Amino acid sequence: MTITRDVALALDEDDVLAPCRQLFDLPAGMIYLDGNSLGVLPRTTAARLEQVVREEWGRGLISSWNTAGWADQPARIGDKIARLVGAAPGELVVADSTSVNVFKALSAALDLSFAGASGARGILSERHNFPTDLYIAESLAHMHGCTLILADDPEQLERLLDAGGIAVLMLTHINYRNGRMHDMAAISARARTVGTLTLWDLAHSAGAVPVDLNAAGADFAVGCGYKYLNGGPGAPAFVWVHARHVQHCRQPLSGWFGHRLPFEFSSSYTAATGSRRFLCGTPPVLAMAALECGVDTLLAAGGMHKLRRKSLALTRLFIELAERRCAGMGLTLLTPREDALRGSQVAFTHPEGAYAIAQALIAHGVVGDFRAPDILRFGFTPLYTRFVDVWDAVQKLAMVLESGQWRQPCYAKRGAVT
Amino acid sequence: MTITRDVALALDEDDVLAPCRQLFDLPAGMIYLDGNSLGVLPRTTAARLEQVVREEWGRGLISSWNTAGWADQPARIGDKIARLVGAAPGELVVADSTSVNVFKALSAALDLSFAGASGARGILSERHNFPTDLYIAESLAHMHGCTLILADDPEQLERLLDAGGIAVLMLTHINYRNGRMHDMAAISARARTVGTLTLWDLAHSAGAVPVDLNAAGADFAVGCGYKYLNGGPGAPAFVWVHARHVQHCRQPLSGWFGHRLPFEFSSSYTAATGSRRFLCGTPPVLAMAALECGVDTLLAAGGMHKLRRKSLALTRLFIELAERRCAGMGLTLLTPREDALRGSQVAFTHPEGAYAIAQALIAHGVVGDFRAPDILRFGFTPLYTRFVDVWDAVQKLAMVLESGQWRQPCYAKRGAVT
Repeated sequence: MTITRDVALALDEDDVLAPCRQLFDLPAGMIYLDGNSLGVLPRTTAARLEQVVREEWGRGLISSWNTAGWADQPARIGDKIARLVGAAPGELVVADSTSVNVFKALSAALDLSFAGASGARGILSERHNFPTDLYIAESLAHMHGCTLILADDPEQLERLLDAGGIAVLMLTHINYRNGRMHDMAAISARARTVGTLTLWDLAHSAGAVPVDLNAAGADFAVGCGYKYLNGGPGAPAFVWVHARHVQHCRQPLSGWFGHRLPFEFSSSYTAATGSRRFLCGTPPVLAMAALECGVDTLLAAGGMHKLRRKSLALTRLFIELAERRCAGMGLTLLTPREDALRGSQVAFTHPEGAYAIAQALIAHGVVGDFRAPDILRFGFTPLYTRFVDVWDAVQKLAMVLESGQWRQPCYAKRGAVT
Repeated sequence: MTITRDVALALDEDDVLAPCRQLFDLPAGMIYLDGNSLGVLPRTTAARLEQVVREEWGRGLISSWNTAGWADQPARIGDKIARLVGAAPGELVVADSTSVNVFKALSAALDLSFAGASGARGILSERHNFPTDLYIAESLAHMHGCTLILADDPEQLERLLDAGGIAVLMLTHINYRNGRMHDMAAISARARTVGTLTLWDLAHSAGAVPVDLNAAGADFAVGCGYKYLNGGPGAPAFVWVHARHVQHCRQPLSGWFGHRLPFEFSSSYTAATGSRRFLCGTPPVLAMAALECGVDTLLAAGGMHKLRRKSLALTRLFIELAERRCAGMGLTLLTPREDALRGSQVAFTHPEGAYAIAQALIAHGVVGDFRAPDILRFGFTPLYTRFVDVWDAVQKLAMVLESGQWRQPCYAKRGAVT
């Protein structure tokens, strides 16, 4: 059947998640398909931040550490995110950036592995993992005297894992370029059989797809607050450790908020029991408050499985329409067609025009993004993306390609930033 | 001469910094002497944050990384803080927490020292340095196979330094407990003669006293955004490296924002030239914006030397009045009387009542704080503290002590939080 714009509108009418769009403050006339880079502004955030600034900070000052619950933010917000990723209360904390949390978790995992008798010294990841994860792994490999091994494809990844000698397998659950999703449970089980610990980066998963860290038998995880959690630009990140490990974990960023009794001001470090030992410095209270608004908004939607069904319907529709409408215009689908392998984004390559096409689309009110060297990336966030947005976005994409207007010099320069 | 309340009021009338108090939103009826723990709210912050949230994030979304200058925040705000601490433009960046920055800077300093031929393997600090610095040093000593040596007093510190074998001397310029200030230039010079690198924590210095890192010949420095810089609870911190070192520095938290070309998405790490290599993850945009308001407010006051003169007058007056008015009531001055040795705070010990006295004072509208085990700490922030506040605070302190009301059970429990 041909999907017309009216069909897309009818899909929106039947969408149980449609009312969630009202929970966000979206720019008029923009189709925002970049929630996988920066989530949009929840309607509650500005007022809540004003309250934190004017009342809690301005009036309460230092007493707000206790009376306004500032000191509890890392664990309280962590418990909320835990519900989205299959972690138990107390297992997950909010802190620092994803990069910093990769450092903590990967270092802890390496120490844990080295303490065993396996002799494994490798860190295994993927060449197309998000660069910051690789940069941190490179640094830790240097510091720990071990080797960072990068697989070029899933098959090579499995071969390298099975061959043994891997202390930690560090993967991003959903790849930032092609949107491909790993089978966390299968890979974690496979890793366990060869004595390898797993560290999962949930940057493109938390709030995007159902995740069940405990059921999957994962060992460590980190994730990002500013994508599908709508926590605001540069929002704090999170870190999770399986309960079986946490008491044996040493993480090197042993700042005072990870101390067992920070306000005893002891001169020597004793790690907190539980996941609080993954905290480091003083929590960023304002940024935490914004993140909490984003997480609360997501929790109000009533469950990741409902979001996942819509997310898959959106990405399926986008792939179908784009491939039909833009056939022969140079786009090649990079994202898996199989639902089970796809996150909440769709990526196409275009050999010469990806950057310029992204820019031209932005000029026409469709915000996706470009990833070097040749990728056009579109994120679908079921809380606020409509089926008609998908239909309209494809129309604009086809128009930009057909007209050749992306070749105009104004779209040619570089300089895009996540 | 007896200083009456009228004398204090006259001092305020003659104070050229008195108008600066209007730049802050202070709770009515409170004498806030805790700006060395959490600075107060500048009048500009709430509106600026609302603009960042509603317009830059809400409307501009991802494009604000370029159009609203988000990507430049770490260097731009860094350059502003640089003016307060004697650093050159481009030398200082804002990032992460103080604890995380201690980790980066101390690790870089150790690597630099080990690359030399000295064979020095020690990290020297003070037992009463702020705990988080010691905890991070403990971790790095463990990772680098070196020794953390803690001096109990300034004389022992000098002896241990002169004895050699110290790779890095890590000091907090102004001690968080007693407010004692080190002579940064003299100690840095002394360290240099024995081949030791210096790392200075400016948590209680930046915005409190004049600092001239380059003139003092310091090697590394970090500092805090939420005390005298008034950046808000848990504000981002800063890190500085002397220009002679920066190109040779490797810091282990090699996240993507420290990469030479973050948006090339290369799979291997190449450090940015200059201090930007001390960045790690995505900058916390909202928290950065609040910090910038605080720093701008401070810069508007017109120079640290003017602030220092008032700060010394305030602390001198507090010591003089408190010692006269509270003589024989159990207080012992912990802070140096000599101006050159004193930061912008005054601390007294009280053998049994420090915590309860701090609580009783808060109940009477005078907010100082308690530091374990027996310290009453009062911070003086010349931008918004008046001479009459000093006079009134001493009256309340004397009243709390004389009346014995601090012994009431309601003030006895523990649980204070910075």
